[in-house]
Formats: sequence, structure tokens, C-alpha cells
Amino acid sequence: MTSQPRPTIADVARTAEVSTATVSRVLNGNDKVDPGLAERVRKAVDEMHYVPNLAGRALRRAQSDMWAMIVPDARNPFFTAVLQEFETVAAAKGHSVVMCNSHETFERERHYIDEMIAQQVSGVVLAATSATRTSVRRLTAAGIPVVLFDRRIKSFSGDIVTVDNVMAGRLAAEHMLEQGVRSPFILTGPKTVSSTVDRDAGFRSAFETAGLPVDPDHVLRLDLTAETAEQELAAALSKASLIDGLFATNGPLTSAAFTCLQALRWAMPERISFVGVDDEHWTQMVTPKVTLIAQPVDQLGQWAAKLLENRSTQPDDQPVRIVLEPNLIVRESSLYSN
Amino acid sequence: MTSQPRPTIADVARTAEVSTATVSRVLNGNDKVDPGLAERVRKAVDEMHYVPNLAGRALRRAQSDMWAMIVPDARNPFFTAVLQEFETVAAAKGHSVVMCNSHETFERERHYIDEMIAQQVSGVVLAATSATRTSVRRLTAAGIPVVLFDRRIKSFSGDIVTVDNVMAGRLAAEHMLEQGVRSPFILTGPKTVSSTVDRDAGFRSAFETAGLPVDPDHVLRLDLTAETAEQELAAALSKASLIDGLFATNGPLTSAAFTCLQALRWAMPERISFVGVDDEHWTQMVTPKVTLIAQPVDQLGQWAAKLLENRSTQPDDQPVRIVLEPNLIVRESSLYSN
Repeated sequence: MTSQPRPTIADVARTAEVSTATVSRVLNGNDKVDPGLAERVRKAVDEMHYVPNLAGRALRRAQSDMWAMIVPDARNPFFTAVLQEFETVAAAKGHSVVMCNSHETFERERHYIDEMIAQQVSGVVLAATSATRTSVRRLTAAGIPVVLFDRRIKSFSGDIVTVDNVMAGRLAAEHMLEQGVRSPFILTGPKTVSSTVDRDAGFRSAFETAGLPVDPDHVLRLDLTAETAEQELAAALSKASLIDGLFATNGPLTSAAFTCLQALRWAMPERISFVGVDDEHWTQMVTPKVTLIAQPVDQLGQWAAKLLENRSTQPDDQPVRIVLEPNLIVRESSLYSN
Repeated sequence: MTSQPRPTIADVARTAEVSTATVSRVLNGNDKVDPGLAERVRKAVDEMHYVPNLAGRALRRAQSDMWAMIVPDARNPFFTAVLQEFETVAAAKGHSVVMCNSHETFERERHYIDEMIAQQVSGVVLAATSATRTSVRRLTAAGIPVVLFDRRIKSFSGDIVTVDNVMAGRLAAEHMLEQGVRSPFILTGPKTVSSTVDRDAGFRSAFETAGLPVDPDHVLRLDLTAETAEQELAAALSKASLIDGLFATNGPLTSAAFTCLQALRWAMPERISFVGVDDEHWTQMVTPKVTLIAQPVDQLGQWAAKLLENRSTQPDDQPVRIVLEPNLIVRESSLYSN
């Protein structure tokens, strides 16, 4: 593989027979350039494989245009849905976005935070692997604006956009109570992930308020990347007694729980009332269709980008907490009264 | 937000009361350090928010350890599954991975290629948006190793790992022929995406060989990010006559097609025999379970990383093409004989 000297903007201008200012205007998307000239510039750029010197441009501004989103699980559709909206707003503001996947591993999250500092990205949004251990202050110490989303970190008081997850759990519980559920089971995540912890807490508190506290043996707490969730749930359900409801506290757990109930041939809603989280496409394709708590993923992604932009331009603003409301979508898997 | 001066390795050594060489050994994961000393170093690193100077390290090696994966659609689980395996191999070789999402848009792909050149990543794997227009030579011109995966580019002769997609289409067709399908319909992608084009071609050629050429009106070609796929397919099917089979050529199209057939209440397999592509989790949760062509996603991701490593260390090796075999998974949606 040989590398030729990279063509400069002057080479492009010479080939296209225009001024370098015209090349620059075309490359920057200025639409006041004569279309014929613009076409000649684009042709020259393509033929010569001209690459604008972004590193030089970045140096002049002392940082890159790149924003990074660090997510704990790229295979959870919730995070790629948030990414999609985040990217759309970021692109409109002139920012590229790279995604890093920490695989729910604190060490990997720290590693990616260090890499993003080394790459001098101009902003980071983070859904953290842990509420109790964090490397997020490395970013602020390096002068890089950071916005948390989806999950809280106990010791960090910066900008954050989350869903009201206590409300999410309460909505699920109140619906189940209306359906006559008296002895529910909860499938949830580890104690260090605020989103699933809050949904779990909201759910229990509503049952407690109704005078039906959830049996402590009726809770299964799994790592969120557990490959064996279906089997572990099946084992736990077979040991539990008198279960008449199941609440799964995030998207992958909802998928695992539904598959498990299918395998056990526990009919929903007749044998067990089932409520999940996250309005993924499959939840409307299966029989029965799944009742669930939907998160406002579009707004999560959009607000993460808006907060990051705000923190970049107004670094001395007070920290902002944005809490978005989830909503209950009632389908077939939970409806005793039908 | 105030930035303090960043602590140096000497500051960490002083706080931990060890030598800088010991700090360095701990940070590089050398396990020959006394556990007590190592713990002291880690404590100091955490408390002081020390960040190793990766940019300096990168400069010394003239490039970063970062690899980039550019995918056309981060919301297609196929790509995040390939990413996961790619990351695992990359991490074992000491590389971080960032993902960029081109949204099936050529301009965005070019933009991310330029950004990755500006960031001086040490390698790129690319599933391209188009077989006919490409910016991939910008990478090779900048001396950055590149490996294509999933999709071919006509004018590029470098390293690539793909699935035998003609075989994928043929396997689907031969199964349908065995089930007695005589007049199938094909839901596929644009003419510029080699993966879906090849599956379409393999499928047609098997029907042609059997003396049953596919009616040219029985093909619907959609953009792969089309939000309206279900409606467009429903309209096309209602106009077509005598359809007794449906082949969808990638994961998102398979999901859209299944939803469409459910909405039309065309019973699978009685009214129509259905075969899709990509063994996503939902395909076993729905009724009927979906017959499909499974791609070896794990091996795709692993081989992409191995080829990139090889190209980085052996730049003068001949280009390599790796073609992996897909396989047919027969479930319920296609089985007339049941």
C-alpha cells in the first residue's frame, strides 16, 4: 500500500479552474455558489480524493467537532434508538458522533473515557455502567463537557436527562393491581444501575401502598448482559409460589421474560399477567401483544444533545436535571378482565 | 466548570509512595507488581483522577490504537452483533473501537471517513452504503488500513469478508420450491447494496433453474431505512396476483414483511410461505416461528478484526477475500407440508 502526497485545496482549485475561496465555499456547503462551478469542484474533489484537513481545522479551534456517546450495551435497541435521535440533533449543530460500547463493564467505560480525552472530543454523553463507581470526573477535569443520560451517578451533580423510572414502576404496578394481581414477581438488574433499581422501587412501593408488599423471594436480580436470563428466571419461577404477575424492568429482560413464559407454557394473561419495559417492534408482533412501559427515547436523545450543546456554550450555567415521563401502553399480555 | 492542571505520573507516584516505573507497570496491566503496591497505585489514580497521556503515547507510535467501524444502520441488530464480536477480538489485540453510523447515506459515510482520517485512527472496517460510489480510497491514500465487510464495492480490490449471499438466496428458493411454492414475491433493497442484490439474484436464479422464473412485477425494491416498508409491501401484495411465497432479503425487511402479513391476515404458511434473513431473537418468539437464512455474524466480526490486524502488520500481503457460508433454519412460517 503506497501513500501519495495528499492533494491540497490549491490543487483542487487548479483542476476545477476556480479560486480556492470557491472550493472552500463549496466544501462548507455554502449554496450561493454557481451550480456549474460547484459541480466542477465536487468532480475535482472526487477524482483527486481530496480530504479537507480536518485535523488542522480542529487545531485552530483547539478541539474537534466530535461528540462521543458511551453506552453500556450497543445490542440493547433502547441505546441505538437514543443514539439515532442524538445524532440527528448533533449533525444539525455540526457535530459528528462516535459511539463506544462499554459492555456493562466499569473498566471498559473508564478506558473509553480516557480514549475520548486522548482524542480530544468536544463532548461526551454517557449512560454509566455503575451508580457508585465512576470515571466521569476525568472528563470534567480535562475540560470536556459531559451529559449523563438514562442512569444516575450518585456523586455526580452535572447535567443529566433521565426518565422518571420510579413512575415507570408505579404505572406498571397500578395497572397490575387493577387487573387483580396480588402476588407479582420482579425480574430486574443489579443494584448499581439506577434505571432498573428505580423501576423496581416504584413497582414495590405501589404494591406496598395497596397493602400487598412484594415477597422478597419474588425478586430476581440479574446482570443486564446475562446470557442465561431465561434459564435463571425459569428456575426462580418454578421455586416461587402463587405468582400471578411478572414485571420485567428493561428491554432485554422483557424479551428474556417473554421467551421464558412461552417455554414454560404459562399463558399470558390467564396464568400470569405480564408487563415489560421499552416499546420494541417485536412486542406488537408476538401473541399476546405485550403490555409495557414506553420510554420517550426520541426526547432522551434530543435532550442529551441539547444539554451537551448548552454546557459547551454556557459552561457556567447551573447543572440541569431533565426528567421525562414514561407512559403505560396496555396491550394483551396483562389483561385479566378480557 | 474549572479545569485544574492534570496530575502527572510523578504526582501519582508521590501520592502512592512508589516509583514512577511501578505506576507505569500497574497502568499497563503488568501482573508482576506486588498486590499491595498495585492497590495503592490504583487508589491514587482514582483519587487524583489521573488520566494517562494517551495522546502522547499515540504520537510516539505515530498513530492511535483506535479502530473505527462504519455501519450503514446502527438500528439493524445485524450490525451491532457484528460490532460486538469485532470489539472482542479488537480488545484482545489492544485496540479500542468506535462506531460511526452513516444512516445509509453516501455523504455521511464520506464525512465519517474524513473524520476518521482527521482523528488518525489506525484502522477502519466499513459496510458501505453503495457499491458504485465510494470514498474508501481516501483511507488508503491516507495510509489507513481498511477492511470491507458485508457489502462489496465494485472498484475496490482490498480485503473483504462477506457472506455468500447468492447462496443465501438460493437456499431460500430451494426450500420454497420443495414446499411447492410456484409464484413467489421478493422484498429487497436498492440496486446499490450488494448483499440484498446477491440474495435476490440467487433466489431468482434457483427459481429460473426450476423452470419458474420470478415475475418481474413480483419484486419490491425499497430503501433499507424506509419507514413505510410495511405499507408499501401491503400495497404491492394487494396488486400482485397468485402469490404463494414471500422472501425478505435482510433483517429489517424480514421484520416489516412479517408485520405486514400479520396485518393482512395472510396466514403463514397456509396462505403464503414466508422466508426471511437474519436469526434475530424475535423470529422465535412470534407465531408462526420464522424460517430464515442465518448469517454467521460472529465469524464476520471476528474475521473483520483479523483481516484488519493482518493488513496493519503485513501491508504488502495480497488482498484477501473471505466468503462465509449462510445456513437455512427451517421453522414454521414456510412449511406447506405440515
